[in-house]
Amino acid sequence: MNVMLRPSVPDVPAYAPNGNECALFETAWTRQLPLLLKGPTGCGKTRFVAHMAAKLGLPLTTVSCHDDLTAADLTGRYLLKGGDTVWSDGPLTRAVRDGGICYLDEVVEARKDVAVVLHPLTDDRRILPLERTGEELAAPVSFMLVVSYNPGYQNLLKALKPSTRQRFVAIEFDFLPREREIEVVSAESGLDAAGVAPLVDLARRLRALKGVDLEEGVSTRLLVYCASLIDAGLPVREAVRSAMIEPLTDEPDVRAALIELTGSILR
Amino acid sequence: MNVMLRPSVPDVPAYAPNGNECALFETAWTRQLPLLLKGPTGCGKTRFVAHMAAKLGLPLTTVSCHDDLTAADLTGRYLLKGGDTVWSDGPLTRAVRDGGICYLDEVVEARKDVAVVLHPLTDDRRILPLERTGEELAAPVSFMLVVSYNPGYQNLLKALKPSTRQRFVAIEFDFLPREREIEVVSAESGLDAAGVAPLVDLARRLRALKGVDLEEGVSTRLLVYCASLIDAGLPVREAVRSAMIEPLTDEPDVRAALIELTGSILR
Amino acid sequence: MNVMLRPSVPDVPAYAPNGNECALFETAWTRQLPLLLKGPTGCGKTRFVAHMAAKLGLPLTTVSCHDDLTAADLTGRYLLKGGDTVWSDGPLTRAVRDGGICYLDEVVEARKDVAVVLHPLTDDRRILPLERTGEELAAPVSFMLVVSYNPGYQNLLKALKPSTRQRFVAIEFDFLPREREIEVVSAESGLDAAGVAPLVDLARRLRALKGVDLEEGVSTRLLVYCASLIDAGLPVREAVRSAMIEPLTDEPDVRAALIELTGSILR
Amino acid sequence: MNVMLRPSVPDVPAYAPNGNECALFETAWTRQLPLLLKGPTGCGKTRFVAHMAAKLGLPLTTVSCHDDLTAADLTGRYLLKGGDTVWSDGPLTRAVRDGGICYLDEVVEARKDVAVVLHPLTDDRRILPLERTGEELAAPVSFMLVVSYNPGYQNLLKALKPSTRQRFVAIEFDFLPREREIEVVSAESGLDAAGVAPLVDLARRLRALKGVDLEEGVSTRLLVYCASLIDAGLPVREAVRSAMIEPLTDEPDVRAALIELTGSILR
Amino acid sequence: MNVMLRPSVPDVPAYAPNGNECALFETAWTRQLPLLLKGPTGCGKTRFVAHMAAKLGLPLTTVSCHDDLTAADLTGRYLLKGGDTVWSDGPLTRAVRDGGICYLDEVVEARKDVAVVLHPLTDDRRILPLERTGEELAAPVSFMLVVSYNPGYQNLLKALKPSTRQRFVAIEFDFLPREREIEVVSAESGLDAAGVAPLVDLARRLRALKGVDLEEGVSTRLLVYCASLIDAGLPVREAVRSAMIEPLTDEPDVRAALIELTGSILR
Amino acid sequence: MNVMLRPSVPDVPAYAPNGNECALFETAWTRQLPLLLKGPTGCGKTRFVAHMAAKLGLPLTTVSCHDDLTAADLTGRYLLKGGDTVWSDGPLTRAVRDGGICYLDEVVEARKDVAVVLHPLTDDRRILPLERTGEELAAPVSFMLVVSYNPGYQNLLKALKPSTRQRFVAIEFDFLPREREIEVVSAESGLDAAGVAPLVDLARRLRALKGVDLEEGVSTRLLVYCASLIDAGLPVREAVRSAMIEPLTDEPDVRAALIELTGSILR
Repeated sequence: MNVMLRPSVPDVPAYAPNGNECALFETAWTRQLPLLLKGPTGCGKTRFVAHMAAKLGLPLTTVSCHDDLTAADLTGRYLLKGGDTVWSDGPLTRAVRDGGICYLDEVVEARKDVAVVLHPLTDDRRILPLERTGEELAAPVSFMLVVSYNPGYQNLLKALKPSTRQRFVAIEFDFLPREREIEVVSAESGLDAAGVAPLVDLARRLRALKGVDLEEGVSTRLLVYCASLIDAGLPVREAVRSAMIEPLTDEPDVRAALIELTGSILR
Repeated sequence: MNVMLRPSVPDVPAYAPNGNECALFETAWTRQLPLLLKGPTGCGKTRFVAHMAAKLGLPLTTVSCHDDLTAADLTGRYLLKGGDTVWSDGPLTRAVRDGGICYLDEVVEARKDVAVVLHPLTDDRRILPLERTGEELAAPVSFMLVVSYNPGYQNLLKALKPSTRQRFVAIEFDFLPREREIEVVSAESGLDAAGVAPLVDLARRLRALKGVDLEEGVSTRLLVYCASLIDAGLPVREAVRSAMIEPLTDEPDVRAALIELTGSILR
Repeated sequence: MNVMLRPSVPDVPAYAPNGNECALFETAWTRQLPLLLKGPTGCGKTRFVAHMAAKLGLPLTTVSCHDDLTAADLTGRYLLKGGDTVWSDGPLTRAVRDGGICYLDEVVEARKDVAVVLHPLTDDRRILPLERTGEELAAPVSFMLVVSYNPGYQNLLKALKPSTRQRFVAIEFDFLPREREIEVVSAESGLDAAGVAPLVDLARRLRALKGVDLEEGVSTRLLVYCASLIDAGLPVREAVRSAMIEPLTDEPDVRAALIELTGSILR
Repeated sequence: MNVMLRPSVPDVPAYAPNGNECALFETAWTRQLPLLLKGPTGCGKTRFVAHMAAKLGLPLTTVSCHDDLTAADLTGRYLLKGGDTVWSDGPLTRAVRDGGICYLDEVVEARKDVAVVLHPLTDDRRILPLERTGEELAAPVSFMLVVSYNPGYQNLLKALKPSTRQRFVAIEFDFLPREREIEVVSAESGLDAAGVAPLVDLARRLRALKGVDLEEGVSTRLLVYCASLIDAGLPVREAVRSAMIEPLTDEPDVRAALIELTGSILR
Repeated sequence: MNVMLRPSVPDVPAYAPNGNECALFETAWTRQLPLLLKGPTGCGKTRFVAHMAAKLGLPLTTVSCHDDLTAADLTGRYLLKGGDTVWSDGPLTRAVRDGGICYLDEVVEARKDVAVVLHPLTDDRRILPLERTGEELAAPVSFMLVVSYNPGYQNLLKALKPSTRQRFVAIEFDFLPREREIEVVSAESGLDAAGVAPLVDLARRLRALKGVDLEEGVSTRLLVYCASLIDAGLPVREAVRSAMIEPLTDEPDVRAALIELTGSILR
Repeated sequence: MNVMLRPSVPDVPAYAPNGNECALFETAWTRQLPLLLKGPTGCGKTRFVAHMAAKLGLPLTTVSCHDDLTAADLTGRYLLKGGDTVWSDGPLTRAVRDGGICYLDEVVEARKDVAVVLHPLTDDRRILPLERTGEELAAPVSFMLVVSYNPGYQNLLKALKPSTRQRFVAIEFDFLPREREIEVVSAESGLDAAGVAPLVDLARRLRALKGVDLEEGVSTRLLVYCASLIDAGLPVREAVRSAMIEPLTDEPDVRAALIELTGSILR
């Protein structure tokens, strides 16, 4: 059983660029423009931001957005301390005070007030007004706002309003090309390329079913899980079933079809 | 009247494996992969987790999820203590600090923000950011997240998002095969196998009606209840009615049909 | 004018069994199985539980569930006391600590989180985890959970989930047979059996209209009210109108039909 | 200009009985049965309760129920006092402690949890359990619960559940007969019977339109307002328009029709 | 550029009566009857109440009602002061204690519990029960409750219930007749009658479109704005567009039609 | 790589008028009339207000409205300080106390109670009643309220009520004419007019697709972003894709069409 390989440079998480995204990120940062990352689940958006933050030597604050995340969760709130109410900065406020990258993952999931709190930070004012304290923070030159979302299953209630979208330079992400994905999965899981290749081929076939039988294609992350289980000694088909089929569907018919497809591809 | 038999090994709850689930659980734990258990009510998912935790010598934290369970219920909240607000860890936070297995039962029932709180814990970062305290906890090697749900009656509003599902290795559970189920029910209830066999046969007939007349099949748990009542001296048909029919339906027609079916099977 | 007759044995509320319910309750208690009582309004479920608790010499905690009853109302919450937050047990927690019967009347009315809080108490673990305090209470041998609901007007939003139902042994209740009901109403109201008999006959006719013109049949409780008013000197028809017709319907047509029906039965 | 006539007996509000309601109320009180008053707006239900309370020499607590009235508003809550939380009785709890009549006006408007809080008070237990303090109050012999609602515009969401309705003896109210209403309006407004009679005739015509063009008929209260304005010197038609037409409808067509109807009746 | 003319009598706001509303208001006040004002936006209801309050020498409390206004906002609530909770009167409670007029503008906008809080104040009891403090305030003779709403765009969810409406004497308001409106707009804006007349004519044409192309007609207030801009030197058509067209519609087609209509009327 | 040009006059943000909006703003301010700005996203409404405030020498308070913004967020609330509750002014209250311009951006997004809180400030009373403190603030002569919204995607739930709209003088905004927009984008981005012109032409073509394929046209802000990326050295087509296409749409078909359109216009 092998130990999972981790990137050799300790401070910069490994990232395999797929186009001009690194140059674009860096230019946006230089020009103080906010950035929007679009793309499917598990294709590396979070890793990309971690990579760029490390490369540019900037602190990174990541906030996973969700249905109940409000503006106050980002900006801060008053807490009781010894009978007094004391203001406590939220993660966005801390990032604006200290500089660096603030990354709001799946921003469309957050409550509507979050999107609008971002407005004064994402036009030429670059300020964060804290209505509750009466402060108005000017973002330092090193501050950059990055947000992401998955257009694959956003719905009408959860779309970004044009008045918010039009405040960002945007990059579309997609899965890696075949050879690059084999390399990445092999490096992350410890399984050799020969073992990984048929898994990637299977994933590419499954991704083609998105929107037909599957809500979403297999992510690179699941490929890493699968290769990792195989590398640890689990039979290939059991690993594929647990890491690439069961996480995709609960429908008995679809599952049966995927298992059959698996059988035809893996030997 | 007999005393109910309990498993003889004091520390490891009895569990009868039905496939490769024990190996898969152990590999997922070794490789630090989160696990998703899918399956119908009362088929032994909770028992399986308790069994594996004891076998691996890991502490187990179980949280029954429900409609009003929020991220803060899992991560913690500020409480007033002597005029001050003091942070109080939730069960997930305690599990991340101390290591061991954290099991979220019926995770789809929880509020949406819970699923997203799990994201940074279920990718290669394995961290739990506590936005309200500003802490970022790194999960120790021994920490493992296990979640479960019942695909049988999840609805659109309650489905796991692909961006969450694709963070887990998954195992599908089903009821035990006939002979294994007779063994288990007999051991748990104290009723001998000859008494249990017709009950299991009846249960298997009732399970075939799922989706037609019944929302859900008879669980192994109800079989244990029924055998337990019979073992305590209650007439068989009264025990079957109270433990295997009334808990399944309120419809007079369906109930009458089930009673008739019972009559034809139990002598 | 007579004084209302109360049961002669001071500590055990009078209860007239209608089947095997007393044996079943006692067996469930011995075997530590939770119990579900199903049946229409006012047929004696609450009285039955009080009767069994007294007979078994167990303390009884009754909670009337409603739309806004949450898990915290049952388990407890933190209160401010002299600047500190002090935990205050809810009725379920007190019952688990002290043993005895905890009866949740009309459990489907409660918020969804209540049903799921009951799960660890109703499988072989028999524990009550208090997430907010970090405690995990093991129920003593004498603890028994009893819940009830009225399948007559439960709706889709308010049905018990199979994963909850399948944790209970269940008993179906119905109205008493004619002679038993006459006895009970006479004993409770003070009116002699000859006066009560036509009221019971009328009630049985009205119950047959349930689902056609009436949402619910006349309860035994309303029969007791009606007999009580007559016993106090009110004319029979006025008592019937106030205690057996007006509480059932607001529809002028239905009311007129019921009054006519009354006229044809009561002399 | 006349001074408005008030009832001559200082302590007992004037009430003109319309049937057996006084006897029924008194019997219900003697037999400790809870009472439900049904009837249209402004027909005297509130006055009737005040009359009976004074006649029986009982203190009266009246609570106007509304959409946001919760069980806690009736039973009480904890308040902060000098750093401590101190329990403060709600109006229902005070009435149960002190005895007398507690009148919940328009009970169907209240939140669902209120109806269920009433259950243990309205069966043979006659107790008020205060879950938050752990107390269980036994209602004294003099305590009586009276509730009212208007079946005229209750909707599905606001109907009383059968399990609640069947806990009350019920009285239906309607408008007074012509001669009695003339007497009452004249006494309350100061306008002589000759002036009041055509107003009452008009009101009876308008009440016949209920459900056709009007949501609700003219109440006796509006008749008193109208007679009062006329008695104070306002022209009859202006008074009728302001007190009997404008409060009934905003529809121009309906208003025009009512004005024409008025013209044909009032000379 | 002229200074805007304000009414010459300092304490009584100018008001041009349009019918019997002043006599009716005064009679209602004398007879202690509550008053309901109905009418379109900007037709002078608020000004009328201010005028009558000043004329009768009564203090005036005005509350603009809105979706989130609760009974507690009107009656008062407990506040923390030095560790204790201290009761703080709301505006309605202050008005009941001190006497004078309490005017609830757009009362249908408020939460449902507000309407019902008004009930005991608007029948012959004239009391304000403060459930939270246990007080019951009797309104002094000088107290009068006035409420208003705009029947033009009330919807089903926001209608006053009959049980509330039938507690008020009601006055319907409409726009002023042509000559009176010219006078008022000229006095308020400083623009002479010759300049105002065509604006009033245009407004009367636009009001005729209500319900066809426009949700609501031009208010007298907008006419004053428009005349004020012209009086300050802005070209007539620019003033009309900014003060009488843009505030009415966002539809390009409707706007174009209104501009054309304007051109045909203004020279 | 050039440094981004910022306006040369330090205190007055650059603004290129497109009609009579500056005169209208100034007249409205002189006459103490509130102002409503309507127009699409990113066309310069916020900049216009900043420009006018600086030109008139008035302090400016800007509040970005959102779904959860309540009246209390604008007016203020009580906070705990050393055990006491202390009133803390909100931004609107501060602006009314101190004078100057208060600008509520996207006012339709706010909760309904905000619109109604504005009523007494936007008629001839010009007062801000603080119900919670019992204060009534008179706005000083220098106070002006400005609100904005985007009629392009307001929906029925979010429309301003006529009773609110008719309290404002309104100005409609649109995108700048071609030559003016080239000037502005060039000045803001540092890219010369020859480089900017084809971008503006492309934007004008894309704006024509609004309502057909695109929810909203390209804003001037996105044009500045795009020119800024090109000025920093990024290839033109990559800059256009990231700043003018990806922020507009997630639809693969629409994106492909826009890329093709781009190719045909940019050489």
